Amino acid sequence: MIKIFLVCCALFFIYPSESYGADDSLWRKLDLTNTVLLSLPQGKVVIELAPSFAPKHVTQFSQLIKQDFYNSTKFYRVIDGFVAQAGPQDGSDKDKSVDTLAIEAEKSITKEWLFTSVQDKDLFAEKTGFKNSFAMATNTLEGKAWLTHCPGVIAMARGNEADSATSHFYFVIGQAPRYLDRIMTVFGRVVYGMQHIQAIQRTAVIAGDNAIDPQDFTTIISMQLMSEVAKAEQLLIEVENTNSSVFIERLNKRRAREGAFFYKKPPPILDVCQIPLRSRRVKISTM
Amino acid sequence: MIKIFLVCCALFFIYPSESYGADDSLWRKLDLTNTVLLSLPQGKVVIELAPSFAPKHVTQFSQLIKQDFYNSTKFYRVIDGFVAQAGPQDGSDKDKSVDTLAIEAEKSITKEWLFTSVQDKDLFAEKTGFKNSFAMATNTLEGKAWLTHCPGVIAMARGNEADSATSHFYFVIGQAPRYLDRIMTVFGRVVYGMQHIQAIQRTAVIAGDNAIDPQDFTTIISMQLMSEVAKAEQLLIEVENTNSSVFIERLNKRRAREGAFFYKKPPPILDVCQIPLRSRRVKISTM
Repeated sequence: MIKIFLVCCALFFIYPSESYGADDSLWRKLDLTNTVLLSLPQGKVVIELAPSFAPKHVTQFSQLIKQDFYNSTKFYRVIDGFVAQAGPQDGSDKDKSVDTLAIEAEKSITKEWLFTSVQDKDLFAEKTGFKNSFAMATNTLEGKAWLTHCPGVIAMARGNEADSATSHFYFVIGQAPRYLDRIMTVFGRVVYGMQHIQAIQRTAVIAGDNAIDPQDFTTIISMQLMSEVAKAEQLLIEVENTNSSVFIERLNKRRAREGAFFYKKPPPILDVCQIPLRSRRVKISTM
Repeated sequence: MIKIFLVCCALFFIYPSESYGADDSLWRKLDLTNTVLLSLPQGKVVIELAPSFAPKHVTQFSQLIKQDFYNSTKFYRVIDGFVAQAGPQDGSDKDKSVDTLAIEAEKSITKEWLFTSVQDKDLFAEKTGFKNSFAMATNTLEGKAWLTHCPGVIAMARGNEADSATSHFYFVIGQAPRYLDRIMTVFGRVVYGMQHIQAIQRTAVIAGDNAIDPQDFTTIISMQLMSEVAKAEQLLIEVENTNSSVFIERLNKRRAREGAFFYKKPPPILDVCQIPLRSRRVKISTM
């Protein structure tokens, strides 16, 4: 009975209504104008921005990067298992110089909007999936889609008002805080060097432990758009194409958990934030 | 309407059927014979063991620790966002010297078994909750409870056979791999120094990147039962008592997401692996 059920599931997910088919390449090159090179004392990190979900946030963030705005700023709010947040000194002239952004925590979609399906009836959403290698969720009744708060995403911090984000941003460094979905603007994700994000100095300590000296907070050496990095210094990453039939088959296999290791089958469930997306590093272009 | 719904939820969860009531202290001292001090080059980590869920694993692990078995062993399989695994050289005499363990990935419970309820119809379980500050799940029909694979848990690795674990263990360092629930024996969790676990050298690299020299793998300086550590060197941790009414109220508040920041309410859902449990450090006992 269980086997029949699993086969049915597999068949269902091999041909999802949201399937693509046109683009079956295994890897996707990043658009270097939407890719960020973040240099930290502990190593280099590459971030892919998501202009199709958060165009105004990506534009403002990119403009700030071009102005070297983030160079020498600190990760001043770093809570293990939650977020690593950076930005200029609160209330400084630099801080106040930046325009507020209208929230872009979700976007309107039509019924024809394509994505690679991962899970129906996820705890926090009607459906989850991937859109161009970004973990996301949808509510088709409301006609909305949003990027989910998985580990490694970058999102803009804000005050209590929806439209109050400026330049302060955070990386998610722990179990996905999905309750922030749809009320915080996720605008990219780490595609390389996540271990260096995990090594950012925590600023919060437990009761009874010594406070961390702000001088020891992790400082951003530099942030650059990859398109503006000298060719010889560029770090070129390609990411798994989540629209491909190969990727969809990998999801099916992951769900079915075949193999002797699974002596007892787990439920045929996938957490969209627990599916590792592959990256690969490619040689520097010599063109 | 939404307000009424939330109030109903709150009322429901303030008086869960699984409530305690007898022990309302906010903090719980750890039993030092079931507490481990792990010294890594980057800092000290404290682990609470869970003999009530995995008695044989805890006994064997504790005995190995007493023999200094893990001192100088390496984290040889460290995958960012997944696990950091350590143990002796595969196939070495030391490795083969350890008895295999019968799996203890779940335990039988009666209907009267008490725990602090967190979420019904979790993606991977009928119910989730906390039992003595350990995140867990139950299936009441099957009469089973198990520790969930949340970030920070320690579990024993194994081969394909259920009863093949020996001494190799892993910490979960990324989004909860809940598909391992009930088929891998979780036997404790990190209660202090998780940032040092997150800083363990990754051993897996992406295609196109240079391999990591095994000489750079993170080495365990020492592992000791806290009860065997000299008093002056003990690191004494207390953890939040998840059986208390104060904690249950904190869960309710976390679910309700009151406060101006939540200009739009998230679903009244809690992921048992996304609830931070507080620890505090207490002064060295002078008794």
